[in-house]
Amino acid sequence: MKSIPFSLESIQAIIKKYPTPFHIYDAAGIEQSAQTMYSAFSWADGFRNFFAVKALPNPRILELLKAQGMGVDCSSLAELVLAKRAGFAGEDIMFTSNDTAAEEFEMAAELGAIINLDDISHIEFLEETLGELPELLCFRFNPGPERTGNVIIGNPAEAKYGLTRDQIFRAYKTCLQKGVTRFGIHTMVASNELDPSYFVETARMMFELAHEIREELGIELEFINLGGGFGIPYLPDQDPLDIEHVASGIKTLFEDMLADFSVKPKLFFECGRYVTGPHGYLVSTVLHKKNTYREYVGLDASMANLMRPGMYSAYHHITVLGKESAHADHTYDVTGSLCENNDKFAIARVLPKIDIGDIVVIHDTGAHGHSMGFNYNGKLRSAELLLKKDGQVQLIRRAETLDDHFATLDLH
Amino acid sequence: MKSIPFSLESIQAIIKKYPTPFHIYDAAGIEQSAQTMYSAFSWADGFRNFFAVKALPNPRILELLKAQGMGVDCSSLAELVLAKRAGFAGEDIMFTSNDTAAEEFEMAAELGAIINLDDISHIEFLEETLGELPELLCFRFNPGPERTGNVIIGNPAEAKYGLTRDQIFRAYKTCLQKGVTRFGIHTMVASNELDPSYFVETARMMFELAHEIREELGIELEFINLGGGFGIPYLPDQDPLDIEHVASGIKTLFEDMLADFSVKPKLFFECGRYVTGPHGYLVSTVLHKKNTYREYVGLDASMANLMRPGMYSAYHHITVLGKESAHADHTYDVTGSLCENNDKFAIARVLPKIDIGDIVVIHDTGAHGHSMGFNYNGKLRSAELLLKKDGQVQLIRRAETLDDHFATLDLH
Repeated sequence: MKSIPFSLESIQAIIKKYPTPFHIYDAAGIEQSAQTMYSAFSWADGFRNFFAVKALPNPRILELLKAQGMGVDCSSLAELVLAKRAGFAGEDIMFTSNDTAAEEFEMAAELGAIINLDDISHIEFLEETLGELPELLCFRFNPGPERTGNVIIGNPAEAKYGLTRDQIFRAYKTCLQKGVTRFGIHTMVASNELDPSYFVETARMMFELAHEIREELGIELEFINLGGGFGIPYLPDQDPLDIEHVASGIKTLFEDMLADFSVKPKLFFECGRYVTGPHGYLVSTVLHKKNTYREYVGLDASMANLMRPGMYSAYHHITVLGKESAHADHTYDVTGSLCENNDKFAIARVLPKIDIGDIVVIHDTGAHGHSMGFNYNGKLRSAELLLKKDGQVQLIRRAETLDDHFATLDLH
Repeated sequence: MKSIPFSLESIQAIIKKYPTPFHIYDAAGIEQSAQTMYSAFSWADGFRNFFAVKALPNPRILELLKAQGMGVDCSSLAELVLAKRAGFAGEDIMFTSNDTAAEEFEMAAELGAIINLDDISHIEFLEETLGELPELLCFRFNPGPERTGNVIIGNPAEAKYGLTRDQIFRAYKTCLQKGVTRFGIHTMVASNELDPSYFVETARMMFELAHEIREELGIELEFINLGGGFGIPYLPDQDPLDIEHVASGIKTLFEDMLADFSVKPKLFFECGRYVTGPHGYLVSTVLHKKNTYREYVGLDASMANLMRPGMYSAYHHITVLGKESAHADHTYDVTGSLCENNDKFAIARVLPKIDIGDIVVIHDTGAHGHSMGFNYNGKLRSAELLLKKDGQVQLIRRAETLDDHFATLDLH
């Protein structure tokens, strides 16, 4: 059973001020997830999670995570600018991009971000762009056929990201020759994975590689970024990722495999979904019911507010507020209003009887929710609210207006 | 072989003023498609295509189509407002929506649009919203198990749209009793279909239904809207839809089946893709090349500019400008820069050898291209240009800026 940090009554009071649909994020829950992660890895000196900005690119959320000690993982110019505006600077920022434009590298360098290169050719491109290489560089390793990916991220050998094993060695060597003095390494081979052993195996792969890099090139890596991919239980009967298992498995390997490093590499992650995903809720009102070849419930939210069900057939749990204890004896397709038949939040979902005007909560929208929204069909993206620890609600992004939507047009 | 209405030299001149990436639309081609359609159906009195605004919601394009005699098919408040600003009024506008908000019906009524109801319950909702019913109403028929859909739109019985056969009859009867005097009917059972017989069979289904409605209720429908769905050949070896075959097949049925109508119903379509799809081109510059487990070409465009390949694995043809005659002896994944592995315009595509700086044209982006774009990863949506018949190029939508992107945030 999924919990919700607000009641029907409290949401009704919020709706008077901020009409549905909106995403609301639970600050206490986000802080708790951050603390759980940091606590599990407290044995690792200099441990840090660089929150993947793309998951929830809102400056108020980033500020909240900064207070928890997190850095940010940025992938674009806009995300770098957002990170700066949220108060991040220097090596608080990891810039992990691919197919990168020169202006993005320039901004990353200006901020003093850790630059994580996706390709061996980017050494030269970066040097040309900046006039010199930064003192610290990181490379993204793609193990290719050495390793199978998980379902969501796919087979590493078919992924566009990262350097091969051979290229990794050549890249560090080239950088050494060019005067780079500080090095990190990065990989990202899973997305939304709930099996703890997957992350332990990734650590093993990376610790082995760190050893080989030391053997071959004399480089002691400053940090090993194991990427993101910590999953969350979207389904109500799924168990959360056993992060203690992940951390203790990695600890054993770390102590075994990196014992002879003079300075231990710092462990980094770049989890987004794990931190904020479960603590976001898309709140929507039932506009219509329809009974044709199936029973339908039509919301005032649409795929514009949450793409994952339509785009990936992803499961998002649904609660009808005030009917948590009602018998679930109806089967509904829960839809939005886009002229796209995949604009369905749920297909054949068993729920209590729903009435027009009911408040429907769609769970786990705190990551890759609002940020993936589009304006197809002229639909507008919703507001974002923050439920603070003192119970106050703060508008942290206003809803789009038609003027916003038409801003790039000349409407005479 | 796909043609392009501009040369490398002319695009290079355009790029000096409007940097890549951008979509450019060929006015002459759009007009030609409109005229081909109207010419094929010139036998049908009052024939009209209501251009599906969602395909290419740009006022300059809508104005161009208005000059060709087209109406507009709108599905949301934003599309209604856009249609109004582009000069459409009254029954030039078909409002086909689902799970519709009251304010959308209000705007449709204010504009005098033809309101096409998606559900029997919307009669009462519309009457409550407007205080009365309009004199003209249309209903969307969903044939359910009577008919199989095509691959893209799926099985009608699983589609959220429309009324069942039983509901259609009840709906018209209710409206008659409530004083509605003018009626139309609509269906939409295919998307991007290239088989002409599919449309002929849809016409047969709808003409039969029109007959039954007349028999049972004494209503002679003013129009029959056969929906959209005319496909375009995305693949270079596909033949275009044989629209003469569609039109002549429908003509035969029309003359046979509706002979005894005192006033013949008007034939409407709501094609978008057929009209503008082939006449849009996403123009992009090669930023990077990469060789790991595959060969990659990285563009300055991304999935933010064109979702169909990543979202639907849709094929979009690619031409390397200036290398049209070069031997295609390289195999590339053509990627954008999103941190999503599905941000690939093409996978294992055989192309001529590509160099950094080459101008790459992605074909058939004139429908569901720019309009489906999102801002995930903080990526900005591109400009839209119109290549006019006199060869001049007009900026018809400026590129998004970071200020646009951050407009709904409080960035202190």
